[in-house]
Amino acid sequence: MKEILPKQIESLINILSTIPGIGSKTAERISFYIITSKDNMVQKLIDVFSDIKENIKICSECGMISDTDPCHICLSPDRNREILCVVEKPTDVITIEKTGEYNGLYHVLWGVISPLEGVGPSDINISKLIERIKKLGIKEVFFALDPDSEGETTMAFIVSKLRDIEDLSITTIARGIPLGGNIEYSDMYTLSRAIRFRTKLNDNL
Amino acid sequence: MKEILPKQIESLINILSTIPGIGSKTAERISFYIITSKDNMVQKLIDVFSDIKENIKICSECGMISDTDPCHICLSPDRNREILCVVEKPTDVITIEKTGEYNGLYHVLWGVISPLEGVGPSDINISKLIERIKKLGIKEVFFALDPDSEGETTMAFIVSKLRDIEDLSITTIARGIPLGGNIEYSDMYTLSRAIRFRTKLNDNL
Repeated sequence: MKEILPKQIESLINILSTIPGIGSKTAERISFYIITSKDNMVQKLIDVFSDIKENIKICSECGMISDTDPCHICLSPDRNREILCVVEKPTDVITIEKTGEYNGLYHVLWGVISPLEGVGPSDINISKLIERIKKLGIKEVFFALDPDSEGETTMAFIVSKLRDIEDLSITTIARGIPLGGNIEYSDMYTLSRAIRFRTKLNDNL
Repeated sequence: MKEILPKQIESLINILSTIPGIGSKTAERISFYIITSKDNMVQKLIDVFSDIKENIKICSECGMISDTDPCHICLSPDRNREILCVVEKPTDVITIEKTGEYNGLYHVLWGVISPLEGVGPSDINISKLIERIKKLGIKEVFFALDPDSEGETTMAFIVSKLRDIEDLSITTIARGIPLGGNIEYSDMYTLSRAIRFRTKLNDNL
């Protein structure tokens, strides 16, 4: 193989293989597609990655990826500046924005507390979060973390740090049976939560 | 969305989405993984793509991708220079090399004849193939094209051009029931071919 595959292509395949969900076969296919594409994809990618390297930064306020600092959301006069949504990673901001259901500010933790992976509270963007909540006079902290053990642990840890802030409402994204899902095949944990935190219909209708 | 996603990231997602098998959701996930990776993946990709742009060429003999011209295989004194394997694309060379079953030369067509997609015989690397067969004094042309209608059409076209070359053996990769496959669920076309071109066991044992 070494003889036949130039080292540059081997390097590209190796880099792409480190992306989760991309195995070595897919990395090979993608690499060859890019290299043999007729519309000069290699140059296009060099250009776009150079542009990203030069212009993409992390917002020093909320931790979101942006081409401005502070980012567009932190700067926007149209957002509700009394509510702060806490997410694990930048893509979660985009996913939530796509719903159009939320108009407050964000805070990206860049991870969750995970003792198994050696990630402690000081390894993620928590102290800045506490600082912002106080500085901005936030009225509601809204957690939108994945409902797994790391997400719950992280939320519990942060909530414990917020106890001394007065008049602060703390909420979390609803957990329950997904739309299109069904009760019979739900796991017991989800179903238990969905029963315990059942929604009042008269509040929502 | 426009407000939240910097145009550089949007561009990267758009470019990656043009790769077959990568939808917009996957392109988004890959883009964010690369941009937010801790080991400076953006710079690594700029470097490797620049290296590819500068050093990867197409072998002027066989059409394979290589960092030398002629490529390593065309230059190798260890290969059997009397047999030429005809493939559709560079990755097919790599796949065949991985088997370790073949030690001859290659010829990459960079496509197959496909009237539906407007690809005619002059759009792929056929004239150079005929020239090489004559120049190199090839004794066997071995077709390893996909066994679909485009592959068969391409093979039939090339074979018609080889009729006047004397003492040339023309072979094609065996088609039949794949190992681990079963007769009951084989399609009739494959099964018909497997019966018509049944293999003599006494030749192979």
